[in-house]
Amino acid sequence: MNTAAPALGLLLSAKVDTAHGPRLDSLAQAGGVRLQRHRVEAADPGHIDVAFFSRDLYEGSSLRKPGPLSDAFFRVADAAPNLRWLHVCSSGQDLPQYAPTLARGIPVTASTGVTAAPIAQTAVAAILAQSRGFDRWLASQAQRAWQPLTGDARPRDLASMRVVVLGAGAIGQEIGRLCSALGLSTTAVRRRAEPTPGFDTVIGWDQLDDVLPHCDWLVLALPLNASTAGIVGGRQLARLPRGARIVNVARGELVDQAALTHALATGHLAGAYLDTFTEEPLPAASPLWSLPSMWISPHNSAASLGHEDRVVDGFADRFRHWLAAHAAALGAARR
Amino acid sequence: MNTAAPALGLLLSAKVDTAHGPRLDSLAQAGGVRLQRHRVEAADPGHIDVAFFSRDLYEGSSLRKPGPLSDAFFRVADAAPNLRWLHVCSSGQDLPQYAPTLARGIPVTASTGVTAAPIAQTAVAAILAQSRGFDRWLASQAQRAWQPLTGDARPRDLASMRVVVLGAGAIGQEIGRLCSALGLSTTAVRRRAEPTPGFDTVIGWDQLDDVLPHCDWLVLALPLNASTAGIVGGRQLARLPRGARIVNVARGELVDQAALTHALATGHLAGAYLDTFTEEPLPAASPLWSLPSMWISPHNSAASLGHEDRVVDGFADRFRHWLAAHAAALGAARR
Repeated sequence: MNTAAPALGLLLSAKVDTAHGPRLDSLAQAGGVRLQRHRVEAADPGHIDVAFFSRDLYEGSSLRKPGPLSDAFFRVADAAPNLRWLHVCSSGQDLPQYAPTLARGIPVTASTGVTAAPIAQTAVAAILAQSRGFDRWLASQAQRAWQPLTGDARPRDLASMRVVVLGAGAIGQEIGRLCSALGLSTTAVRRRAEPTPGFDTVIGWDQLDDVLPHCDWLVLALPLNASTAGIVGGRQLARLPRGARIVNVARGELVDQAALTHALATGHLAGAYLDTFTEEPLPAASPLWSLPSMWISPHNSAASLGHEDRVVDGFADRFRHWLAAHAAALGAARR
Repeated sequence: MNTAAPALGLLLSAKVDTAHGPRLDSLAQAGGVRLQRHRVEAADPGHIDVAFFSRDLYEGSSLRKPGPLSDAFFRVADAAPNLRWLHVCSSGQDLPQYAPTLARGIPVTASTGVTAAPIAQTAVAAILAQSRGFDRWLASQAQRAWQPLTGDARPRDLASMRVVVLGAGAIGQEIGRLCSALGLSTTAVRRRAEPTPGFDTVIGWDQLDDVLPHCDWLVLALPLNASTAGIVGGRQLARLPRGARIVNVARGELVDQAALTHALATGHLAGAYLDTFTEEPLPAASPLWSLPSMWISPHNSAASLGHEDRVVDGFADRFRHWLAAHAAALGAARR
């Protein structure tokens, strides 16, 4: 190893250190820096330049409440005077434990693309299963009742349905691609109405009101921020046709949850799949739990055994680019 | 109209007669015959050459028990001395009302391709939804319990899973195509191991035992006959790896239902989606209703509002070919 190369201190979990340390060393070496890996348990904040909040460190956390592993990690990261980049395992940057880093003006990158495939698959699973009738079949099954969907109660053909996806990032695009493969029409709503893989049609936000009356599935797949909070309110829900359904695999605050509950309870909406809520865990007393044709998962749409490795792959990829962009500056600062 | 053309008597429902009569007339005329449409209610069996058992005539029937509209139709068809072709709306030819026609040696054609898309979509809906965790999420939801799938309880990545489809007809091929789009590996088991659209691998029946240990989803999509009855028995189920799941959108008699119940109750199989059963309706006392991760639909996987029209389209297509093949003979017999 070239000891003359500038050193770079990386804060990481013991698990990632053990399983992926040599691979990260090689990346650093190829980028012209000497990697010093610091496990959370034994890290001196003064030596940390880059911090990687990997998926294993998130275990025991919920969206609003960091767990003990997360606390230990951020005790070091938040005390690191030279921290210049934080990469996190979540698909959003809005978790409370990231706030101090963001407040310091330090770049925080999220693992959006890494959870895109499983989250999109989960959203499409609900769309496909409810569209085919499983919401009603399973309700009958719970009563041991043989009740075929006949006559007008039969499901509409997928080819006659339109899914409108709010947000066309990695998750939204994968939802569009899978729904297209299933034969649904696909419309994306995004800032710029430019052609987007996976979608028949792309419109801007100013056209949302026009498309809602022609929407069978409204899917939220966009980040939460000041301009998107409450973007689907009572007025938007009322513009959906009777019998439309909704999916939220993004953040609960994007939707007016009281208005959504009302639209479902009155039958204006025929069903929903929600993974996220304004309060998590969803309180046991919430009426959402038992609305007809409501499917709920506990902020868990990304769950998959391959997750950890995909987060590391995503970090490694970004790390390589980061090194290319910063190696010269690192060398100048440390040599 | 050319009254010198040979006449052909078609038995059909009043609904199809009204909605599609002129279109069928045109097809016949193009084929050189003069169509005489006979509605079930007013048909003289002596004038019937071809009988079309459309989907609307199936309403009120179950698989084992013909309904009143079916009875009325087959009272005419079974008494028609010149009947030479029966086309039916179901995907199989094993319904009891077809038995007399088959026993007379008259060709019966089924609407296999017509229900292929919705049946395949239903099968894949269950595969995708259970693979992502909805079986366990919905069980938690029923108890208003926020129970994320974490650690080893998380679902395997779709890309690491293999679906093995028994039968590679229209339904099986569409299941293969959709599972491929979702990233699963796909293997078809069919009589001849020849390359088949939608499948990575195709094997013959003699290789079934070898593939079962590497199968995450076993899907039955093949017709019931003397050689396929009971094709999945206790021995085959035991060869599946622990945690595998099964889908039956074909016929209940293809599977040893007692052995299947046992494999699910003991946890050897992790889940199932069954649309068909050895006894239908499935008796309320059946243990299948409440097995964990068991999804049941009431022989209803093909349900879709576009069904009737697709059945008619399929009949019209076959009718055109049938006319081309038989017009000369019809002319010789009647002219």
